[in-house]
Amino acid sequence: MISMQRTDLAVELREELDTREMIEGVHVSTKINRDNDVKETRIVIHSEEGAKKIGKPMGTYITIESEELRCSDEDYHEPMSDSLYRHLKDMLGGSRKILVAGLGNRAVTPDALGPMVVDNLYVTRHLMKENIVTCTYEISAISPGVMAQTGMETQEILQGVIREVHPDILVVIDALAAGNSNRLNKTIQLADTGIAPGSGVGNHRKAINEDTMGMKVIAIGVPTVISVPAIVDDAMDVMLEAFGRNGTKQAIEEFTEEERYQLACEMVEPYLANMFVTPKNIDEAIKRISFTISEAINRLLHSYN
Amino acid sequence: MISMQRTDLAVELREELDTREMIEGVHVSTKINRDNDVKETRIVIHSEEGAKKIGKPMGTYITIESEELRCSDEDYHEPMSDSLYRHLKDMLGGSRKILVAGLGNRAVTPDALGPMVVDNLYVTRHLMKENIVTCTYEISAISPGVMAQTGMETQEILQGVIREVHPDILVVIDALAAGNSNRLNKTIQLADTGIAPGSGVGNHRKAINEDTMGMKVIAIGVPTVISVPAIVDDAMDVMLEAFGRNGTKQAIEEFTEEERYQLACEMVEPYLANMFVTPKNIDEAIKRISFTISEAINRLLHSYN
Amino acid sequence: MISMQRTDLAVELREELDTREMIEGVHVSTKINRDNDVKETRIVIHSEEGAKKIGKPMGTYITIESEELRCSDEDYHEPMSDSLYRHLKDMLGGSRKILVAGLGNRAVTPDALGPMVVDNLYVTRHLMKENIVTCTYEISAISPGVMAQTGMETQEILQGVIREVHPDILVVIDALAAGNSNRLNKTIQLADTGIAPGSGVGNHRKAINEDTMGMKVIAIGVPTVISVPAIVDDAMDVMLEAFGRNGTKQAIEEFTEEERYQLACEMVEPYLANMFVTPKNIDEAIKRISFTISEAINRLLHSYN
Amino acid sequence: MISMQRTDLAVELREELDTREMIEGVHVSTKINRDNDVKETRIVIHSEEGAKKIGKPMGTYITIESEELRCSDEDYHEPMSDSLYRHLKDMLGGSRKILVAGLGNRAVTPDALGPMVVDNLYVTRHLMKENIVTCTYEISAISPGVMAQTGMETQEILQGVIREVHPDILVVIDALAAGNSNRLNKTIQLADTGIAPGSGVGNHRKAINEDTMGMKVIAIGVPTVISVPAIVDDAMDVMLEAFGRNGTKQAIEEFTEEERYQLACEMVEPYLANMFVTPKNIDEAIKRISFTISEAINRLLHSYN
Repeated sequence: MISMQRTDLAVELREELDTREMIEGVHVSTKINRDNDVKETRIVIHSEEGAKKIGKPMGTYITIESEELRCSDEDYHEPMSDSLYRHLKDMLGGSRKILVAGLGNRAVTPDALGPMVVDNLYVTRHLMKENIVTCTYEISAISPGVMAQTGMETQEILQGVIREVHPDILVVIDALAAGNSNRLNKTIQLADTGIAPGSGVGNHRKAINEDTMGMKVIAIGVPTVISVPAIVDDAMDVMLEAFGRNGTKQAIEEFTEEERYQLACEMVEPYLANMFVTPKNIDEAIKRISFTISEAINRLLHSYN
Repeated sequence: MISMQRTDLAVELREELDTREMIEGVHVSTKINRDNDVKETRIVIHSEEGAKKIGKPMGTYITIESEELRCSDEDYHEPMSDSLYRHLKDMLGGSRKILVAGLGNRAVTPDALGPMVVDNLYVTRHLMKENIVTCTYEISAISPGVMAQTGMETQEILQGVIREVHPDILVVIDALAAGNSNRLNKTIQLADTGIAPGSGVGNHRKAINEDTMGMKVIAIGVPTVISVPAIVDDAMDVMLEAFGRNGTKQAIEEFTEEERYQLACEMVEPYLANMFVTPKNIDEAIKRISFTISEAINRLLHSYN
Repeated sequence: MISMQRTDLAVELREELDTREMIEGVHVSTKINRDNDVKETRIVIHSEEGAKKIGKPMGTYITIESEELRCSDEDYHEPMSDSLYRHLKDMLGGSRKILVAGLGNRAVTPDALGPMVVDNLYVTRHLMKENIVTCTYEISAISPGVMAQTGMETQEILQGVIREVHPDILVVIDALAAGNSNRLNKTIQLADTGIAPGSGVGNHRKAINEDTMGMKVIAIGVPTVISVPAIVDDAMDVMLEAFGRNGTKQAIEEFTEEERYQLACEMVEPYLANMFVTPKNIDEAIKRISFTISEAINRLLHSYN
Repeated sequence: MISMQRTDLAVELREELDTREMIEGVHVSTKINRDNDVKETRIVIHSEEGAKKIGKPMGTYITIESEELRCSDEDYHEPMSDSLYRHLKDMLGGSRKILVAGLGNRAVTPDALGPMVVDNLYVTRHLMKENIVTCTYEISAISPGVMAQTGMETQEILQGVIREVHPDILVVIDALAAGNSNRLNKTIQLADTGIAPGSGVGNHRKAINEDTMGMKVIAIGVPTVISVPAIVDDAMDVMLEAFGRNGTKQAIEEFTEEERYQLACEMVEPYLANMFVTPKNIDEAIKRISFTISEAINRLLHSYN
């Protein structure tokens, strides 16, 4: 479900803060695999203070990035898929019954990530119920649609389904917003916090997390769009360099990232609150990265514990 | 969900019986509108004996047929859509909160009827909850997918959603099987009995009806496929005319329709149990008739009680 | 094919010029139908000087607008569809053999307009060739795809097809860019000039017009996206109001629209040249307006000359 | 384009003849790779007499089969894809400029094979023209649609495109009919003869081969449907065993395969000529095998000569 946040990526939120100093309650570690160009960043927010500073709930956020994801050769996805598989398996812990929910609108290309991942999953729950196969993981999956199509909150649909099928854990797949285009369609964020939409105006979605679902919720997300104010925010810098008298420039430079984003929000016309920015080749990008994610989840079926 | 019944149409089941004699507990009435070529058949099964004879649960089955539905001109759908709207509104009675479920697999053309109807609905539940609009009917909608995609019974998903959103009534849209091709993609069946799959081998779907859902279930169906045995059954007649010695022919003629279908089932290879027969232009046909149905449901929003 | 022009709409280009004064070689007339809220604007550019001032080739541009196109009720499209039908029939003149080309990428929602119109057309060429039907218009249709999918220029594919099927006239359907969101997904532009992409950097598409196709080319377009610089351009005004010292503001106000757009282009990062801005409900909007256009073309089959 | 042939597979036509005796002008060789269960059958028809006996034009037909293609694990496709790649590269010979045409109707699941392969190809022609990349093969691709959508013969569209882009060779991808379901969705046929539809009633498609296209045409096909008469034909055997008096049974046993198929055609109602039989899980099957084919073609880009 396309949100209108400045960014949904913990790694970007961390970068916006002064990167030289330690933040209390936030631990960041980075690992780059030189063999395959995959960069993994783990951000652990372990105090409420850290959560407040970053603007994300407490928990673990793993970002998997690779320049190669934008290439068209299928072989390059293998390392990303493998990295996601290993971290996902780790986060699942002892959970064996997994419900995968592909959030978003299948008819809007950048928002179709979740439904496309679900389309490519190998579900096993029905086969295991009837003793047709034996697998380590019992997988079921649903694409609940979006409120404009269903008239229902995604949260309501998932709560209902969970009450019937009793999974151990919920894995939600969702398209995210990024603050700039460097990470667009080439970064996967894995978090054990579920989805907790900000308090931003216009965002009435309720959280999908342990509080509301009654079980651990893992969120897999890929930034596929940039919000309009984030674009304007970027342009503002260039503009101030070019035209700004010192006073104005200085005034803006004293703003926090959050304040600047609010300013950019006010600068764009209200109708733009419902628009998003996305690359022209979004169709190929979404197809490719959705396949990377479904492969990672499908690989669970070949694993042994 | 494509079933492998001989036919899901009450009107065909009735026709197979000796049409000259009254059947105890079954009342049939037909109305042809000469203005627009729409033929409406109402079959009311009001006793268990009648239900057993027809092979369908007790309830009301309305069949709306028009030669014109196969034509490509959009204008011809108007009378079908109008007829469906009026009968649907009648069956809804005092129910105001409607959950529409589009059953079937969106990726298989003849089975995509339900999801395509849902794609074209105007849902109102979320707008009414937030007091954005006032409507006579509160409409929500879902396309739950099929078990091979979700790992869950359709019944389970719907029960879960119903427990959360508390509709007054469930309307399911589904692709049906017909016994012959005369009614394919041009007949709409409306029933207040829900969906109660026969006891046929290979059909493990559980019923979606008042018993299992805890509320009235209206089923709207269109025959989009023919089962393989039904085709073989048809061919058998021609073959017997051509080659059959009197003995064989006579033996077969003494069979009931049901016995003949069982015979045809045994004649086809087991793998054919998972195959279906459908016309080459199924894409256009499904698009057109799904639009006829969604228009009928959308028209509820303009009606006053 | 999503272009990165400031605007593809003649009516917006005209508005940007001083609207009080006459422009040599450009004639504008407007008609509002109070019955159905359809506003028709006809811009005739009849001299090279006028073409240069507006920034569009000589020819006739008809804009059909309606507030109602954004509503969800199908009935509202009827007046738009009817207006388009009448103007299209008029532009066709004596041409009887029509090739319709649905340009754009079917896999990117806002760019799928052309292919979706073609999907809903009733083609007659093959039926007329075999004397199955008699119609006033012989209609054939193709969705040639985009260069990133085919490796070929759209122009090349169309030239090849035209050489084989010899239409009298080519009608191209395409998604356009608008300068602001007021006209997005609710305006249809009909032009007898074909498509002549500007000389803007990054735009290597060749023209599809009478010069290159050897026959009259009618273009039907709907603005479905806004370019990123156009958004930034808009934001600039607000920003200057808020922060700008008089000097800066004045400097910018002296710029022409074209100069301001160039400035905005330079302000956004180069990667944004390949991004577009589109509303979140683009799926419904495209479905609805593509249907309005296909209906207008299909109506030709019922007309008599 | 779904044909109504008994079978489009040379390997099935050969099997129907007495397999113990040599056929003049037809050479068959088979190779089974025990490592990966891929079976390759090469049928070379090198005389007009052989062509007449088999019912296929002179040329080379390679069938690649694997039980594993029906499995859901992506890894199993690798050997099929590799085998297809090697045989395709061999057939291409010195040709470097390849036009790939994905035949069929994208909106009908079993007929969407061709368009789905094209959707996943990496085309290079435009990149090579502008000197952006250097590749051994210049690849362009088109999905021309079907006559009911375009009003044009597929042949006409391809001839037009070829005249513009001047490929060295045409590769067509198409869904085929099989005589029985054993090979459905798990066999790939590669032929250097193009597509030459039989003289069967109802089949007005013109050939797409060297005669009509002016260059070598390679056809890659997968059987995705069975014709209705083929099903009836199968059922006939069982029926005769069960009921047939000796006379009838004997009479039928003396028929050739071709005569029996004609008989079955006459036994089914005329409307069935436009119907096809396909498995319920056709969506997954088509997705998987289209990916196997596109991968084989994409691999050309990594090969060196």
